[in-house]
Parts: sequence; C-alpha cells; structure tokens
Amino acid sequence: MVGPEIERLIQLLSRLPGLGPRSARRAALRLVEKREALLIPLGQAMAEAAAKVRTCSTCGNFDTIDPCAVCADPRRDPALLCVVEDVAGLWAMERTGSFRGRYAVLGGLLSALDGIGPEDLGIESLVARAHAPAITEVILATPATVEGQTTAHYVAERLAGCGVTVSGLAHGVPVGGELDHLDDGTITAALRARRVF
Amino acid sequence: MVGPEIERLIQLLSRLPGLGPRSARRAALRLVEKREALLIPLGQAMAEAAAKVRTCSTCGNFDTIDPCAVCADPRRDPALLCVVEDVAGLWAMERTGSFRGRYAVLGGLLSALDGIGPEDLGIESLVARAHAPAITEVILATPATVEGQTTAHYVAERLAGCGVTVSGLAHGVPVGGELDHLDDGTITAALRARRVF
Ligand SMILES: [Zn+2]
Ligand SMILES: [Zn+2]
Repeated sequence: MVGPEIERLIQLLSRLPGLGPRSARRAALRLVEKREALLIPLGQAMAEAAAKVRTCSTCGNFDTIDPCAVCADPRRDPALLCVVEDVAGLWAMERTGSFRGRYAVLGGLLSALDGIGPEDLGIESLVARAHAPAITEVILATPATVEGQTTAHYVAERLAGCGVTVSGLAHGVPVGGELDHLDDGTITAALRARRVF
Repeated sequence: MVGPEIERLIQLLSRLPGLGPRSARRAALRLVEKREALLIPLGQAMAEAAAKVRTCSTCGNFDTIDPCAVCADPRRDPALLCVVEDVAGLWAMERTGSFRGRYAVLGGLLSALDGIGPEDLGIESLVARAHAPAITEVILATPATVEGQTTAHYVAERLAGCGVTVSGLAHGVPVGGELDHLDDGTITAALRARRVF
C-alpha cells in the first residue's frame, strides 16, 4: 500500500547497520517529509560519494584521491605502519589524533569458519610494504577478539625476520571489543602502552 | 580527516531517526563499502522518491499520484474517515488491514508549548470534509498521549453538530504510546472496540 518507490527506499535503508525494518520505515518517512532539507541532499551526497570516493590502492582507506590524504601527507611518520581490520578501525585510530604514521587496511580477519585466508586480506602486499627500508615498526591494531588476535599473530609471524619491530595495542582494549566502539581515551592509552610481540 | 564527501554523508545520515553520530558513521562506511549494491541504488531511490512522491492534497498521505491510492480506491468505504497524527500513523492503520475507510492526516498535534494551533493542522478543511453527506463516522486515531487526546477532544468538539458519529480508538492503546510502535493486533483490537466520544 506504500507504493513501489517508498517500498524500495525502505528496503534499501533497512540494509544499513543499525536500521531494522521498523526504523527503516521511520527513516523513509522522515526523508519524504523533509524532501528539500534531507531527501534531495542525501540522494545527491550519495551520488557524489559514489562518483568520487575510491579505495586507496596503497592502504585501503576510502578517499577521493589515490593515494589517500593519509598516505599522501608528507608530515606522516614514514617509520610507522598500523594494521587495522577495516576502514572503521582506521577512522577510530585517526579520531584519537595520537597516531602519526600510516595504515594498512586488511579488509577483514582470518577466519577458518568463513574461509578467509591470508590471500584474501592482502597480507603478501602488507609484508612487502613492511620490507621498505623506512619502516621500523608495524603496530597491529586488529580487534581484541579471537579472530583479531589470530590475525595479529599470523601477521607478526610473517613479519619475523624482516627487521621491523612488531607491536600490538596494549591491554586496555576490552576483550571482545571492536575498535570502532571504543572511546578515544581507551584507544590512546592502548596505543601509548603498546607492547612488542 | 574523512574527506568532505563522506563527512557530508555522515552528517545527513545522522539526521535520520534511529541513527546517532556513531551509527551514521557506520552506515556511511557500509554504503561506501557496498558501492554497487547499496550506495548507488539508494542514491537513485532517493532521487526517484524526491522526483515522484508527493503529498495527497485530499488526505495528506504520501504517494506518486494525487489523490493517493487510498483516496482513489473506489472499494473504500466512503462513510468512514480516520484522523491520524501523521503518515506513520496512517501506515500503521493500513498495515492492520482492518480499516477500509479513508484518512485525514493532521501533520502534527495541538501543542501550546510548540505554538501549534488548529490552523497549523488543517482542522478547518477536515471539518469541511466531515460535512460531506457520505460521511457518517469520523474515527479519531491520534496517539494516546496528552497532546494526542487534547487534539482528539478539540476535533470532536469541532465536529459536534455536523451530524457524524465521532469515535476514538478503544483503550488497549497503551497510555503514552505512539501508533507506529504498536503491534497490528493491538491496533486491530482497539479499532474494533472503538467508542463513541
Ligand atoms: Zn592510503
Ligand atoms: Zn489521499
């Protein structure tokens, strides 16, 4: 009874994280109610993001330029490389303002259950990057979950013998916690107290 | 550090009901990750809704045609008019499948605090509609909140002497509850047991 245009809007909105079928319906209504202030600008913002935002071919971050602003920033410390699960983790690190190196986004975690192996995470190219003479430390900032720590240990083993210090975020990250759910202070403290693997 | 395109996407998404700043960020990330499957289709669905969906000039519903499908449906009972706060309330009534009349969407509730008076809710045109000879009953389905019931009583008073039965949803709607948050069974029961004002 809603009409196919609104039905499609609801259906697509319900695929966003945090929106169930009911809240997707409420979101669709709000959009149609706020046609000029919200529906049209958001549609345009999505079209613009789709046209301009790409994946950085160096680190896996999202940006409108490639290499991304983080990779291209000459003030970044070329000696530090931080390994994160996904772009949400990268953003969480950046929000703290306490890390001045660059990143490698894995795009996932090792998982026997989901059939995700090292080749799916581009670990080969991460190891290659870590071999660059400028790099002296690789900080493993994968989540403190079983899969996150399994992945960290695998990466640490692969980096053994390439002449870099491999460290991980200090305990302080709650066990089972996702980086993106933490407050900035916890991430900052964990980064400062990072330990050598 | 996110880039203006993604920043704008996050900012607009955070204005949707049910999405705070953090979940808006997660939603923006999901969109950029699912560029082909989600970001582009959702942007297009919004552009299409913006271009096609309008407010029914008779009842206030949203549809791509005016009068809307509910107003235009000849199988609807022309004797029944149901007054709802907003389109969310109309949709909630329609989902039950137990009301076969037509609607009047107020677009709000009377509120001295927010300075919303009868003229802001189109109550004049509602009264004019209720005077049509075909109409025999007006069902007041505003929420069971103080403002909802104040509005219902005001409308009931304004309809006194225009020769229609004025009824309200039966108790069964939880006090303080919004129509859109109720299960279909509760709404159906409340509709069946509606009482004369
Ligand atoms: Zn980059
Ligand atoms: Zn209508």
